[in-house]
Amino acid sequence: MTERTEQDTHLAGPVLIVGAGLLGASIGLGLRARGLDVVLADSSPSTEAVARDIGAGRLRAELDAGEAFLPELVVVATPPDVTARAVADALQTYPRAVVVDICSVKEAILRELGAIPGAAAHLARYVGTHPMAGREKSGPVAARAELFTGAPWVLCAHTTSAPDAVLRAESLAVDLGAVPARMTAEEHDGAVALISHLPQVVSSLVASRLQDSPVQALALAGNGLRDVTRIAASDPRLWVQILSANAGRLVDILYGVREDLDRLITTLEDPTAGGARLDMAQLMTEGNAGQARVPGKHGTPPNSFARLTVLVDDVPGQIAKLLTEIGHTGINVEDFRLEHSPGRQVGLAELSVLPGKRQELTESLTQRGWKVVQ
Amino acid sequence: MTERTEQDTHLAGPVLIVGAGLLGASIGLGLRARGLDVVLADSSPSTEAVARDIGAGRLRAELDAGEAFLPELVVVATPPDVTARAVADALQTYPRAVVVDICSVKEAILRELGAIPGAAAHLARYVGTHPMAGREKSGPVAARAELFTGAPWVLCAHTTSAPDAVLRAESLAVDLGAVPARMTAEEHDGAVALISHLPQVVSSLVASRLQDSPVQALALAGNGLRDVTRIAASDPRLWVQILSANAGRLVDILYGVREDLDRLITTLEDPTAGGARLDMAQLMTEGNAGQARVPGKHGTPPNSFARLTVLVDDVPGQIAKLLTEIGHTGINVEDFRLEHSPGRQVGLAELSVLPGKRQELTESLTQRGWKVVQ
Repeated sequence: MTERTEQDTHLAGPVLIVGAGLLGASIGLGLRARGLDVVLADSSPSTEAVARDIGAGRLRAELDAGEAFLPELVVVATPPDVTARAVADALQTYPRAVVVDICSVKEAILRELGAIPGAAAHLARYVGTHPMAGREKSGPVAARAELFTGAPWVLCAHTTSAPDAVLRAESLAVDLGAVPARMTAEEHDGAVALISHLPQVVSSLVASRLQDSPVQALALAGNGLRDVTRIAASDPRLWVQILSANAGRLVDILYGVREDLDRLITTLEDPTAGGARLDMAQLMTEGNAGQARVPGKHGTPPNSFARLTVLVDDVPGQIAKLLTEIGHTGINVEDFRLEHSPGRQVGLAELSVLPGKRQELTESLTQRGWKVVQ
Repeated sequence: MTERTEQDTHLAGPVLIVGAGLLGASIGLGLRARGLDVVLADSSPSTEAVARDIGAGRLRAELDAGEAFLPELVVVATPPDVTARAVADALQTYPRAVVVDICSVKEAILRELGAIPGAAAHLARYVGTHPMAGREKSGPVAARAELFTGAPWVLCAHTTSAPDAVLRAESLAVDLGAVPARMTAEEHDGAVALISHLPQVVSSLVASRLQDSPVQALALAGNGLRDVTRIAASDPRLWVQILSANAGRLVDILYGVREDLDRLITTLEDPTAGGARLDMAQLMTEGNAGQARVPGKHGTPPNSFARLTVLVDDVPGQIAKLLTEIGHTGINVEDFRLEHSPGRQVGLAELSVLPGKRQELTESLTQRGWKVVQ
């Protein structure tokens, strides 16, 4: 490991990325955009060729035979099943490099690493990390340099991680525009079981019920169903590995879900029984309380922006006109969502602004002839 | 019932709305906007006063003593628990009026009506309906005339509904900009159990788990959790009535969910057991298949639009500039969503366009200096 001071906050390279799928290739693109030398390796020749072709880096397989390749950092971005093995290989092959993985579970990797003969001696140079970013698509074709921009990037130093290795892992996050968040592997795995693995499996459970439903029923679906089932489109191969690796924590949460579900089923089996309605109300109220704790998009407290809705004709240029005129008011739009109405040439533009700006914007838009409906 | 031909496709009024909450007041606003005489009645004096003050209609309580009030149509927009009683009262009080309700369950109302002495003789003038629109907010303050614009409005004629009464119910939907959809009460209740009541209770079950979670864990939450839990913010009082009234159909679906959940829990309890991974993969794959059947926002098949993402600086006017320039290309944006990154002054604008327009728009924006990242 080369000497490094706290002042060296940026990576210098070269960086080796093992695994050139969506995340690996996105990291490659982001580091290449900063001018770093990036070298890629993937067990699939076609995957690594695509990653190279989109500009994510050059290939390890194509290094000159005489080239001394001494990566500053190795990023293991393989599927969870083979991550620990790839980390151990990198630690042994590149004895001066810091090695990080970006797997969505952290305790299982550390446990597997501990069991690999010869790996334990090198663990000071290893830091487990997890960028909280992804897409429903996969593969290097879906990669983009900005995937991590503004997203939290969890760093889980273990008890023997060297401070310098942690700093280098942090540099990776910062250089890619992410926001580093330090926590233990245990804290991380508990958190993702709740905020990522639970919604994933429940979304799949709901979507699964739609398989044989009449088209007529689905035609009535609104944003509620769309939002609840969106992530059910995720990749089963990847998720089987994630769920297996964090099975213990997830199943503890699912016991609680099953208990609530059983209670709900009992009340629905006899909705006129004494206490049935109270039970239902309690479930809904607990849902209200939990939902209110979910942070908003800026990482801000929920409901910290005020919304207003503007009616927009669905013709080219109308939305542009609306946004141009909002621009002229000098009020910043914090979020903007356009909802089209099925079968109608009209849309509803939902705008979020700071609460203090809502009245001013409503008046300004109304004066300009827009219909602010809420 | 006055004579009416198929040519009379619009309501003439007056229309009486019983129940002046979010939906009742929104119907009042929409019909007032068409110039109809709307009269409101609510069991809460303050609710009906607010509805009147926002322009949703005049109050029945304030009609002149000498005024002969003969509504063409009575819309019952009360909570589900008192809907059948209110429909029966309206049928008896206004012997020439068509009476519709807008309750989110339909068989229970019809069953209750059948049990009310004296109501059966009038049922030819009754049609059950359900506008597929709503908001997470409630009360007349949240009302808006455009709430139903483009939304499906289900009409459930029963076996003795008069054709003229069905036409008048359809006129209500059309006059408010909704898209009428005729089906039986049985088909309707089966559909909403699946596309509305199931996602609602599951969203509440997930959100409920977040009540005692560490703030640090919630800070890592992404759009997955936000989307799955959004509707958990809904009103418990209303939902207890809806769930109770459609309990039988919902519980049948929940048995299936519990079976899948039990299977998932078993595999997670021993993820290395033979067949465990296959079971997990199957659940995820079934979720993929169900999710693919959810229609898109225009009522179009899912995935019928192509998306591209543009990087936008988070300063006033930037989004307006982007949209203005898109307007100049003449390409219509089908959907637009702005995602802010927590803690960063940058946003990602996700645009949906017809697939054939994606390449053209990408090139055009790139030429104008925008960074199209996917």
